[in-house]
Amino acid sequence: MQESFLKRALWGFQPYVPGEQPPDGEDWVKLNTNESPLPPSPRVIEAIKAAADDSLRLYPSPTAAPARAAVAAHFGLDAAQVVMGNGGDELIEMCFRAFAGAGDRVAYPTPTYPLFEPLCRLHETATVEYPMGEDWAWSDAFASDPAPLKFIVNPNSPTGSWADARAVERVVSRSRGVVALDEAYVDFAPASCIDLLQKHRNLVILRTLSKSYALAGMRVAFALGDPSLIAGLVAVKDSYNLDRLAIAAATAAIQDDEHHARIVEYVVAERAWLAERLRASRFEVSPSAANFVFAKPPSGKDAAAVAAALRERRVLVRHYDREPIAGWFRITIGTRQQHERLLAALKEILR
Amino acid sequence: MQESFLKRALWGFQPYVPGEQPPDGEDWVKLNTNESPLPPSPRVIEAIKAAADDSLRLYPSPTAAPARAAVAAHFGLDAAQVVMGNGGDELIEMCFRAFAGAGDRVAYPTPTYPLFEPLCRLHETATVEYPMGEDWAWSDAFASDPAPLKFIVNPNSPTGSWADARAVERVVSRSRGVVALDEAYVDFAPASCIDLLQKHRNLVILRTLSKSYALAGMRVAFALGDPSLIAGLVAVKDSYNLDRLAIAAATAAIQDDEHHARIVEYVVAERAWLAERLRASRFEVSPSAANFVFAKPPSGKDAAAVAAALRERRVLVRHYDREPIAGWFRITIGTRQQHERLLAALKEILR
Repeated sequence: MQESFLKRALWGFQPYVPGEQPPDGEDWVKLNTNESPLPPSPRVIEAIKAAADDSLRLYPSPTAAPARAAVAAHFGLDAAQVVMGNGGDELIEMCFRAFAGAGDRVAYPTPTYPLFEPLCRLHETATVEYPMGEDWAWSDAFASDPAPLKFIVNPNSPTGSWADARAVERVVSRSRGVVALDEAYVDFAPASCIDLLQKHRNLVILRTLSKSYALAGMRVAFALGDPSLIAGLVAVKDSYNLDRLAIAAATAAIQDDEHHARIVEYVVAERAWLAERLRASRFEVSPSAANFVFAKPPSGKDAAAVAAALRERRVLVRHYDREPIAGWFRITIGTRQQHERLLAALKEILR
Repeated sequence: MQESFLKRALWGFQPYVPGEQPPDGEDWVKLNTNESPLPPSPRVIEAIKAAADDSLRLYPSPTAAPARAAVAAHFGLDAAQVVMGNGGDELIEMCFRAFAGAGDRVAYPTPTYPLFEPLCRLHETATVEYPMGEDWAWSDAFASDPAPLKFIVNPNSPTGSWADARAVERVVSRSRGVVALDEAYVDFAPASCIDLLQKHRNLVILRTLSKSYALAGMRVAFALGDPSLIAGLVAVKDSYNLDRLAIAAATAAIQDDEHHARIVEYVVAERAWLAERLRASRFEVSPSAANFVFAKPPSGKDAAAVAAALRERRVLVRHYDREPIAGWFRITIGTRQQHERLLAALKEILR
């Protein structure tokens, strides 16, 4: 990269690198990016096909109005409390654009989603990281930090840990700026913090259709919050951030509660099954409230070497090499068949 | 909007407001947002339907690889010289993220696309506007401004004016920063400046499928430039900015040269026809190299009142109320039938 043209704040920049996406159609056991093991609702496919017509020559609704209305109805909210995003990453980026200026503090607990740090660089904000404590608890110092923007991922990735609404409220109520609560994985957890929206005007909750709605390929997410906060996000977003087919897909997905429940139920059951089998293989397995398990191979085994050996067998997982999670794996919940292949491969590798 | 949560740079912020998007299915003559009057290629619709399957559960290619390869092949470039965007607006925003830090100058000639000014506010850059001269020519002062980022729209909106490669090169060669040349409308103009890429490493050309490919509803655009500049844009973009169906649609669209040529030919012919009719109705019509005409009603007529009267008749056009273009209209090239309705409405209104 020719650094002379890049803005100075980006010299030496290390962008966020998403998990490996092997070409479609190859026989990979892809457990590295937390996609759904089950397909999206058939109604979504139908809705897309119905929307794929000559009207694609026209711009979409700037606010993705049908999807926004469907989300609002689903949660018993007003449309003014919802903004749609081209994936959760866009919503996170919109929070920076709206709430954190150059030089402002942006705070979050670590370890967590590795996108926050590069976005701080991009937006020239001050990165303020608070290492989590025992059982991945958030520190008091984090809660009382005066940052105009904080992020919490709950359930957290990659740890799978989950905090209840009281713990979240402790942070939100002590924060004078905006708290963006990323609930990308919350459908697999005991409960959402959505009720806190009624009491706290500085809370914005981010949700995605990529995991529990099986639509990672369509890039749809949404944020819920007080109309004044949401208006700020709408003001800074790209004019037409969702295309017509994403709007159609999202609207149909949100309305198919039954299919959604089936995905969640399957993932939660398989999570318990896989965790048990991994423990039986002498893995340390952390309790997970998400659609993945966070696990560490038996002591003495090098995680990077195990991951590489898995990859040779066309099994993809994430592994971490920095403290406090060096040596740990994040393994997405797949189908039973994928789990069997993973376990068979691990048996070979770890014997 | 609750200003206390918005970052200080956005207090009093006026976002860019896109043209009115009336609900689908109503009988509007929609000549306000420069969409294509003809539909997209039937191959695009087929490609979307073929891609609408269970693989939507998986993330798309982060670089939209198939579309990127198709664009590169179309222009005889390498994939490393191409980056795909979720519409042209995202590419413009990516130029800010990569090349203009807080406090940096961002320069562009005016009047032009009204998105640049709010993006300067958002990114806390210094807005440096250079009024165009006679025949909408760019000033020497603009060419020699030391800004790290400049924008040129060519053909320009809303004026429809076009500058040849020599005029563009004069700016690019005197600029020490990046020049982003927005060629959204270039397929309707005499020639592109794409050959300048061979000589100038600080030039990045933005193109879109929204106009001449009739895919405004799919949000696909791309930038062409030196691999080092493109690498900078890739580094700052959202990880998965195009969804799977947008990638499929773009790939098919770019490969259907025949359909593309048909759209361009139709628009160019209708542009001449409409300009002539408007002149016959005593409009002043500026020469246009885009898919719209820039025209001023007969003197003594209030443009805002005419636009409102058109809207009452379900005809949408853009009108401007600030100098140097106060009283002018931007009218998208539609179908012959739409033009007849526009002209009939104008006859009623202006009699």
